[in-house]
Amino acid sequence: MEVYVDGVGMVPFGKHPQLSLVSLMAQAARGALEASKGPEVEALFVGAMNPEEFTGEGNLASALADELGLAGLPSMRIETASSTGAAVLEAAFYAVASGAYTSVLAVAGEKMTHQSTPRVTRILAEVIEPYEKNAGASMVALAAMVTQAYAHKWGLSQKRLERVLCRVALKNHRNGALNPYAQFRKEITEDQYFNSRMISYPLRLYDCAPITDGAAALVLTREKRDVKITGVGHGTDTLAVRHRIHLHSFAACRAAAERAYAMAKRGPRDVDLAEVHDAFTCFEIIGAEDLGLLEEGKGWRAVEKGRTEIQGEIPINPSGGLKARGHPVGASGLAQAVEIVWQLRGEVDQARQVKGARVGLLHSIGGLANNNLVVILEREDAPAHALPWEPVFSKPVEIERHHRPDPRRVSKEGVLDSYTVLYVPPEGFPSPLVLGMITTYSGQRILARAATPTTFRVGERVAIEKGDDAFYFMRFGLGQRLTFRITRKVKGWKLGLKRKFRL
Amino acid sequence: MEVYVDGVGMVPFGKHPQLSLVSLMAQAARGALEASKGPEVEALFVGAMNPEEFTGEGNLASALADELGLAGLPSMRIETASSTGAAVLEAAFYAVASGAYTSVLAVAGEKMTHQSTPRVTRILAEVIEPYEKNAGASMVALAAMVTQAYAHKWGLSQKRLERVLCRVALKNHRNGALNPYAQFRKEITEDQYFNSRMISYPLRLYDCAPITDGAAALVLTREKRDVKITGVGHGTDTLAVRHRIHLHSFAACRAAAERAYAMAKRGPRDVDLAEVHDAFTCFEIIGAEDLGLLEEGKGWRAVEKGRTEIQGEIPINPSGGLKARGHPVGASGLAQAVEIVWQLRGEVDQARQVKGARVGLLHSIGGLANNNLVVILEREDAPAHALPWEPVFSKPVEIERHHRPDPRRVSKEGVLDSYTVLYVPPEGFPSPLVLGMITTYSGQRILARAATPTTFRVGERVAIEKGDDAFYFMRFGLGQRLTFRITRKVKGWKLGLKRKFRL
Repeated sequence: MEVYVDGVGMVPFGKHPQLSLVSLMAQAARGALEASKGPEVEALFVGAMNPEEFTGEGNLASALADELGLAGLPSMRIETASSTGAAVLEAAFYAVASGAYTSVLAVAGEKMTHQSTPRVTRILAEVIEPYEKNAGASMVALAAMVTQAYAHKWGLSQKRLERVLCRVALKNHRNGALNPYAQFRKEITEDQYFNSRMISYPLRLYDCAPITDGAAALVLTREKRDVKITGVGHGTDTLAVRHRIHLHSFAACRAAAERAYAMAKRGPRDVDLAEVHDAFTCFEIIGAEDLGLLEEGKGWRAVEKGRTEIQGEIPINPSGGLKARGHPVGASGLAQAVEIVWQLRGEVDQARQVKGARVGLLHSIGGLANNNLVVILEREDAPAHALPWEPVFSKPVEIERHHRPDPRRVSKEGVLDSYTVLYVPPEGFPSPLVLGMITTYSGQRILARAATPTTFRVGERVAIEKGDDAFYFMRFGLGQRLTFRITRKVKGWKLGLKRKFRL
Repeated sequence: MEVYVDGVGMVPFGKHPQLSLVSLMAQAARGALEASKGPEVEALFVGAMNPEEFTGEGNLASALADELGLAGLPSMRIETASSTGAAVLEAAFYAVASGAYTSVLAVAGEKMTHQSTPRVTRILAEVIEPYEKNAGASMVALAAMVTQAYAHKWGLSQKRLERVLCRVALKNHRNGALNPYAQFRKEITEDQYFNSRMISYPLRLYDCAPITDGAAALVLTREKRDVKITGVGHGTDTLAVRHRIHLHSFAACRAAAERAYAMAKRGPRDVDLAEVHDAFTCFEIIGAEDLGLLEEGKGWRAVEKGRTEIQGEIPINPSGGLKARGHPVGASGLAQAVEIVWQLRGEVDQARQVKGARVGLLHSIGGLANNNLVVILEREDAPAHALPWEPVFSKPVEIERHHRPDPRRVSKEGVLDSYTVLYVPPEGFPSPLVLGMITTYSGQRILARAATPTTFRVGERVAIEKGDDAFYFMRFGLGQRLTFRITRKVKGWKLGLKRKFRL
């Protein structure tokens, strides 16, 4: 059964101190309902990531139905961490496609700006796997390590990496300046970017999406409209980042993309514009590669060449993205959908309009890429995919799991897969905090802290020591104490030779 | 498209201090997966009401997929307060019915016993409408007022009401004693019931479902099995209890029941057993009436006559219900479904087995009955409903909204619609705290505190005074200061006569 988009609505993103979360969401919902031509909605699908802790508002699904004067209708809350908005769209899509309803309302929102930054960081950190969180990793620290791993994998120098990230930030601010719904409606300069505070090397303040209040809403219907949802893909990954084989791209995004393309019978070449989850600038490049929109390992070159600008070959985040539109965590996925619908309907200002956009794609990341969605929306008059349809990736995406470490058997040396210098560590940790992902010679991946706050090279050999609270790593070299141990079993006896010395 | 139930699983409800919420849910899920004959599941639907605040576990949908070794699969969390488990079933049902998946896993759980009772009460109270919460109302206080309104509406004396509630508690404990998955596996006596602590008059400790850890899981599939889901109904109501026209029954439960019956083309007479949301004993009676299983206003008589016992005409809560099986808030709705599937498959002990059960119904309440679900499950060989099918209620259920009060215009007298004496009030309130629902003579319903902790009669005339923090009410009579005021407008002049006196 085909599922169409009727009206859409959104509140301008930013600070809304005077409104409760429910009022904010109701405002977006009323916009969508008023813009709808179809029959009255029969059910509500409501998303917020953590209203209980951000605003103390529980029972959100009922509260919103009541606020809208729709008490009586079925109403259900959906949550998948920071991809919640996209998951609301997915749940609403199934409900309409199942034939249970003719029209339903999908609404998502979050209210965060009234909380202090440390508290927001703490609430957001609940999505991180407990061991990694307790080791001092915050979302930005993990994102920084993914960024470093990307640069190492594809041979970008640190300087070039920084310039590429800057390009993404500048583009999204430029696009955001054209978007009346964006939190930041100002362009930024290279100087501003490079002078902005380093949060977690190599990510600066301008590499990170801001703290935002916002809400977005769509009405989905079985009745024919000009825009339809043709593909919905969803994929998860290991909760712990260190359990993943690859750190430089997101397997779950690939799985989600593959599923969405297969359902829509589309491929990356059909996509006219994409809203990509740029909670951190590098995620936009990795995301575009995971989606097959940019060539693997060459996404950064495409950015350098301006191919992702509004007037480029594959416009990414014409809205300004999470970076400039803002990132009310539960709302972002649905705000991406609203932007795409506006673009497909030609309802945005000329400067922001992607010319001839007929197929749009949204990509939303939940947590540190453990719960990701891809949704394809298209105009009724979009040309069909040149058949036969083929999977985007040459082999099916599989989530492989890194060997889980047995802490008692971690060897004393390893290779540094990635690292970051975190300048705004969680409460109780020293600043700067240097965190590294290390593949040990015993074949396990661990997250460790540097014994001293020095810099490292990704790919270098490091020594590992087990402390009381965490693993510590240090540069392998002068001053390094080494233990050599030879053991042999002879007729049931274990003979050992052990020697410690300094290099 | 038909949706069938494959394997089901559950962990024994009770205290599980050694397990995290995710481990608890994984255990139930593994049970369901192992019991399934069908193809591998393709997606997860996960429910918990408030894991962030109960256990600090965020990103639950991804965490569970990872824990089960199913990282990669789509996974989405659902929440509708205390009916979350049933809403998970609903979302999973749509996903299968839409054709998107062949088999999916529905899992719901909650972990609460490691928290102190005051903290659990505080977390649960987040689902209450803010004004009512701030006035001192907790879930049990609101439930007690609903109970009083029910007794007043149908002419039960206080003594008879207490005896009826006791019968419900005794029955559910008796059933729970037969259920190896129940938290309380002991019968209780009338003496124990009447000697148990009064929590909020007329509700005693044994009228309230306990604090519980637990999880339940079902696999839904498109492939033919012996049990199918034929009806899913969902309805919401005003967040504030005082905004409802009727306090003695739940319009949203009726709306949900009507929808489920209509989808299944069933009526109450087809139902062989029901799992009814007895978070408070009286809710079982009101629920059975809302479902049309017992005659309106005569549910209490049916309880007196033992018609809801396992061997009665319409067995209710053969599992022991929330009362004895326990109430891990997010899990209960799905645990009800598991019990029904076991009953329909004849997989429970003989003493608990409802003979010839072929159609089962579950009824789950979210919040103070603002987000309710009804699901009908039946065996493939269940006889069809005698056609033609007719709606259960003579007129369509409408959620009417009580006139919202303008606090400046609340008149000084009213009728007491219901009241309770709360002996375990929220922090910062005196004990006992007497709360009343009053319809003022100006036609508004307010929630007020008694000026002094005395007892009242429901239906009596009370005086109202506005204090700084709340409305206060008192018995109308001796000691009551009255104000008589006569005003006339004469040629633009306003003439007044005012006299205060004591009765």
